[in-house]
Amino acid sequence: MRIVIVGLGVIGGSFAISLKKAGYHDVYGIDTDPATIEKAKSAGIIVDGNASGEAFLRQADLTVISLYPRLIKGFLEKNRENFKPGSIITDATGIKMNLLREIEGIIPETVDFIFGHPMAGREKKGIDYASAEVFRNANYIITPTEKNRPENIEILKKIISDMGFGHICAVTPEEHDELIGFTSQLPHAMAVALINSDKEGRNTGLFIGDSYRDLTRIANINEDLWSELFLGNKENLLMAINNFEIELDLIKKAVFENDRETLCRFFRKSSSRREKL
Amino acid sequence: MRIVIVGLGVIGGSFAISLKKAGYHDVYGIDTDPATIEKAKSAGIIVDGNASGEAFLRQADLTVISLYPRLIKGFLEKNRENFKPGSIITDATGIKMNLLREIEGIIPETVDFIFGHPMAGREKKGIDYASAEVFRNANYIITPTEKNRPENIEILKKIISDMGFGHICAVTPEEHDELIGFTSQLPHAMAVALINSDKEGRNTGLFIGDSYRDLTRIANINEDLWSELFLGNKENLLMAINNFEIELDLIKKAVFENDRETLCRFFRKSSSRREKL
Repeated sequence: MRIVIVGLGVIGGSFAISLKKAGYHDVYGIDTDPATIEKAKSAGIIVDGNASGEAFLRQADLTVISLYPRLIKGFLEKNRENFKPGSIITDATGIKMNLLREIEGIIPETVDFIFGHPMAGREKKGIDYASAEVFRNANYIITPTEKNRPENIEILKKIISDMGFGHICAVTPEEHDELIGFTSQLPHAMAVALINSDKEGRNTGLFIGDSYRDLTRIANINEDLWSELFLGNKENLLMAINNFEIELDLIKKAVFENDRETLCRFFRKSSSRREKL
Repeated sequence: MRIVIVGLGVIGGSFAISLKKAGYHDVYGIDTDPATIEKAKSAGIIVDGNASGEAFLRQADLTVISLYPRLIKGFLEKNRENFKPGSIITDATGIKMNLLREIEGIIPETVDFIFGHPMAGREKKGIDYASAEVFRNANYIITPTEKNRPENIEILKKIISDMGFGHICAVTPEEHDELIGFTSQLPHAMAVALINSDKEGRNTGLFIGDSYRDLTRIANINEDLWSELFLGNKENLLMAINNFEIELDLIKKAVFENDRETLCRFFRKSSSRREKL
């Protein structure tokens, strides 16, 4: 099976490394940065690569698009005629509904675009931070539509599983975006708000434990990508923030009223939910 | 130097293990649970121990009180006459002002009580979860008062450093409680509110990445201890929650208004603060 990865950043690069480890050796890369292509070739994780990649696309059984969401439409328009008929396309985009609306009319009828989302990432960007470890035992969400062929879904699942992912779940694009607003975008908004609410100029690093360190890790954030994700999933994110604030206000009220029993009830609920996770 | 640890839970037990690794072998334990004393003795991290410990206290140069905050007053009252004159007492309590007010009049004049707070812990309680690793390179805050003798502060700092802690900071008890409301109690309130704001019955674990996992780790929480810490530091915690909510609402507003530039500004601020941490 010949695979082309479009965009060899931290995610696309991790695809390439994981595929190689899984025994997929017929892998090619498309990236606008010549240095990135060179690194990927020297590392032996792609056979070859370049910026346009038309020739690779024409022979690829699977195309993995790992671009910023806003670049996907342009890439598809430019390459409509280049995809191999009968081949599979997938993506790694963090939100789905917006993308679906945007590219609905331009996916060629001859290819099978199965949308997916690896639930793993790094704060840092670029191929230098790519690794197979980031995907190990992680979750993968796919959002198949009725257009997708069942046998192609199985092929894609097999590859995902070979790369080392732990669980593969299929949900609708609507469910995906609602879930992701809660499990991914809300935590990022919380981390940013937490560290930004610190007093200016205080040497807080000397007074922290693991909790603050863990909760602010993702406050170091790729602004291009995450502003796009936040705004592209606006309604779901706002709903998730509101639901979270309701719970936080309940804690605030219990503290204000010295209501120990209510606080303990919240803690028992959160502990039991965390243990089930 | 003879040391007595009062309360061999996850923190007291970690003190015992770390002290042993650092070459302090004259260490005794006081704990109301006979099984805990037995475990500590078999592990070779205390020479001896029992529930009352009067005889140990009479010969101890340093007493480390690692009890639930609400138990400290009773312990001091009961043992006023038992502490060795000229010895040092320290604690591991997560809030200071309440405790200071509570025990102000009952600290014997013959001992030097230097308050401290190791910024490390575990979600789990009990000696089975104790380890030296939990303290390695962690922060330690001490809150000396003018009553403390400088040479005793140096002795305590040396022991803390020997146990493997990374940084030792001295601040006032007021500063400590304000800092801790922000760096420790607020993150715990956030983690609890996050997981409690999830939809009931949803199999969320299949759709999460590291961010949700990291942000909810401390939602598995010891309800006795943390309800006491939240209520004992009420004003500082409420202030920290309010400041956090102000920042979160600014993010919410920027998302609502599709204000990408403002979002990116928040992300740059949070990234720069996180990198400095």
